[in-house]
Amino acid sequence: MRNVICGRCVKCGREYEAVPNLTNCACGGILDIIYDYDYIKSHFTKQTLAERNNPTMWRYRELLPVEPDTPDTPLRVGWSPLYEADRLAKQLGIAKLWIKDDGLNPTASLKDRASAMAVAKAKEAGADVIACSSTGNAASSLAGNAAAAGLKTFIFVPSRAPKGKVAQLMTFGATVISVQGSYEDTFELSKQAIDKWGWYNRNAAINPYLSEGKKTVGLEIMEQLSWQVPDYIAISVGDGCTIAGLWKGLKDLYAIGFIDRLPRLISAQAEGCHPINRAIETGEPWYPMEENTLADSIAVGVPRNADKALMAIRESDGLVVNVTDEEIMAAQKLLGTTCGVFGEPAGVTGAAGLKKLCEQGRIPKDAKVVSVVTGNGLKDVANAIKACGEPISIPSDMDRLLEAFAQRNIHPEA
Amino acid sequence: MRNVICGRCVKCGREYEAVPNLTNCACGGILDIIYDYDYIKSHFTKQTLAERNNPTMWRYRELLPVEPDTPDTPLRVGWSPLYEADRLAKQLGIAKLWIKDDGLNPTASLKDRASAMAVAKAKEAGADVIACSSTGNAASSLAGNAAAAGLKTFIFVPSRAPKGKVAQLMTFGATVISVQGSYEDTFELSKQAIDKWGWYNRNAAINPYLSEGKKTVGLEIMEQLSWQVPDYIAISVGDGCTIAGLWKGLKDLYAIGFIDRLPRLISAQAEGCHPINRAIETGEPWYPMEENTLADSIAVGVPRNADKALMAIRESDGLVVNVTDEEIMAAQKLLGTTCGVFGEPAGVTGAAGLKKLCEQGRIPKDAKVVSVVTGNGLKDVANAIKACGEPISIPSDMDRLLEAFAQRNIHPEA
Repeated sequence: MRNVICGRCVKCGREYEAVPNLTNCACGGILDIIYDYDYIKSHFTKQTLAERNNPTMWRYRELLPVEPDTPDTPLRVGWSPLYEADRLAKQLGIAKLWIKDDGLNPTASLKDRASAMAVAKAKEAGADVIACSSTGNAASSLAGNAAAAGLKTFIFVPSRAPKGKVAQLMTFGATVISVQGSYEDTFELSKQAIDKWGWYNRNAAINPYLSEGKKTVGLEIMEQLSWQVPDYIAISVGDGCTIAGLWKGLKDLYAIGFIDRLPRLISAQAEGCHPINRAIETGEPWYPMEENTLADSIAVGVPRNADKALMAIRESDGLVVNVTDEEIMAAQKLLGTTCGVFGEPAGVTGAAGLKKLCEQGRIPKDAKVVSVVTGNGLKDVANAIKACGEPISIPSDMDRLLEAFAQRNIHPEA
Repeated sequence: MRNVICGRCVKCGREYEAVPNLTNCACGGILDIIYDYDYIKSHFTKQTLAERNNPTMWRYRELLPVEPDTPDTPLRVGWSPLYEADRLAKQLGIAKLWIKDDGLNPTASLKDRASAMAVAKAKEAGADVIACSSTGNAASSLAGNAAAAGLKTFIFVPSRAPKGKVAQLMTFGATVISVQGSYEDTFELSKQAIDKWGWYNRNAAINPYLSEGKKTVGLEIMEQLSWQVPDYIAISVGDGCTIAGLWKGLKDLYAIGFIDRLPRLISAQAEGCHPINRAIETGEPWYPMEENTLADSIAVGVPRNADKALMAIRESDGLVVNVTDEEIMAAQKLLGTTCGVFGEPAGVTGAAGLKKLCEQGRIPKDAKVVSVVTGNGLKDVANAIKACGEPISIPSDMDRLLEAFAQRNIHPEA
């Protein structure tokens, strides 16, 4: 890869050749992929990109850690819509708001970006099998993207994993091992099996290429905004990989001169589980926290990528905000009614955080903000049902309909 | 609309001015929108289209029944991916197969195309409210597309409607009336309410613009294939609007010279509910049939658009095929494992039908085929769970993992 210099440990600075099956540093630190921006600048312009007819994350190939001849992965990952949300902006009292709906990825979450990258690198490594442990979107996105590419997957889930997600995995043909025990037990068994059989490793915060896939959400936001930098980008934070990836993408664009400043990040976590935000608030190192939130995808008490996430929030002079489950579910309804976007609870946590910051007067009235929805509400219908209330239930009778409307103060006049 | 001549009844031929709130003919027949293809040809070329940077169904505006200044609707509807499915083609013993994944539309089904058109026409009509009766995808797509456009919706569902779909509707802010009674009772109440309050009508097979939205799936398939016409296009059939819309799109392209021949349609219905296919098989008029299938979106015993559907199948010299629920669920798994595409049961019925026809030797070995997936599997997780089997369940112990693999003849070697 002519555009990549090396993988560098974020803890000790040790450098590694960027081979396809790169994992953590010997010190245990996570690697960051280091690029040759001068080389990239000489081969990649905004004009090149504008003329490229490829509505996927692979349109940014010059900024991605793949060989020039590595094929695009088969599913259409990325280039999710960025919607102008003028009515919601008005409600929140800010100048401009855009919603990036990453729930429209092929397996319905932002994680498809990381899994597509894993599949591309596994192909480079000549691997036929990819494995990971996960309870949710990472697993289903890996299973789907690997199936499309003709690769086998072994996926380890704790036995508490929701049946719906297991059904997705089984439909994509993954070999699913449901581990009777905690997530830590599950991770441990996956690690032993990966070591034993040499499967390609898609465990988050171990494979350094995954956040390079995730960063494409940041590249897209900027291209879709015609390189006009917003003041803030709000996103939910669990293990920290996604916000770190987003920040990496923005910094890449700054480094090659596509944008002339950087936005501030808004890190939104659940009130019931916010170890990363707590570290920012207190200025202390992060330490584990209980996992008390219905937003399962960000219920991460021991974030595996806290280092990169904390660096991203600090470097961007970011804001942190914690929201209750009630605020999360209210944001789900708010995005649904004002934007026609249905996000899963973790998916709308960024928007919930933004709303709270606006109410607290922490976002200036002239601010331009992007809020990322990271997963589709169809992934977790059970919680939506609990939150959204009951329909009007009546027999087929106009008098009863009139009565029901009157009781509820509904005005049916067109 | 300079490109539209009129709405013409498919039964009696009577013509109507193409006003935005057009409904059925006085004789009860469904209207077809008639275009001025000479005018369109003079304003619309393949080159125009190739240069158009608009990855939505509105890229085909010259072929759509909207005013030039009617805005695109806000959600990103259409331009769903068309995947090459070489491994599956080989398995089926045909030369080439593509899968069109319309489950990646904003509310996760092809119905978004019709609902976006309804929203555009409602805006032209100056309406603030749209209404429909439906149990499923039509309802959720209308609720989502209308919410994004700032329109109110009143949606009538029978009380048996699945809770998940109701949750989607409520999240999008629709006023949902759950009618204690049959679908006919529900439809009747919606009709009375629409008449009383003058809401814009999005009931299928009444509003003639809806299938003009649906036809964009056919336009896209052909553009994505660089205008190289496949031999067959397979699609599931319920009330008949979708296959009729698909055919309309293909005929439009033929009329303006973008394609030089037409493919044959494959109409796939459920063994337990196939009134349209039965009419083709027997050569008799269609008559109602029981609704015995788990593929809820095509469990339509009284198809509301049988006329247009039958014409489409006959004109295309089409094939009909009925599949059992077991064959439908097997096709869901087959698409998941070979293509990474997760379709709802009705969504994969076209693929199930294609497989059956291949096995019966009714599709030539050199055939090039497109199969349309009309809705996302996340819409109906319950049936997927029933069909996809159980994962391996063990404690976190390598010996137990080895044992489990051996018992199931799984070879973990990378």
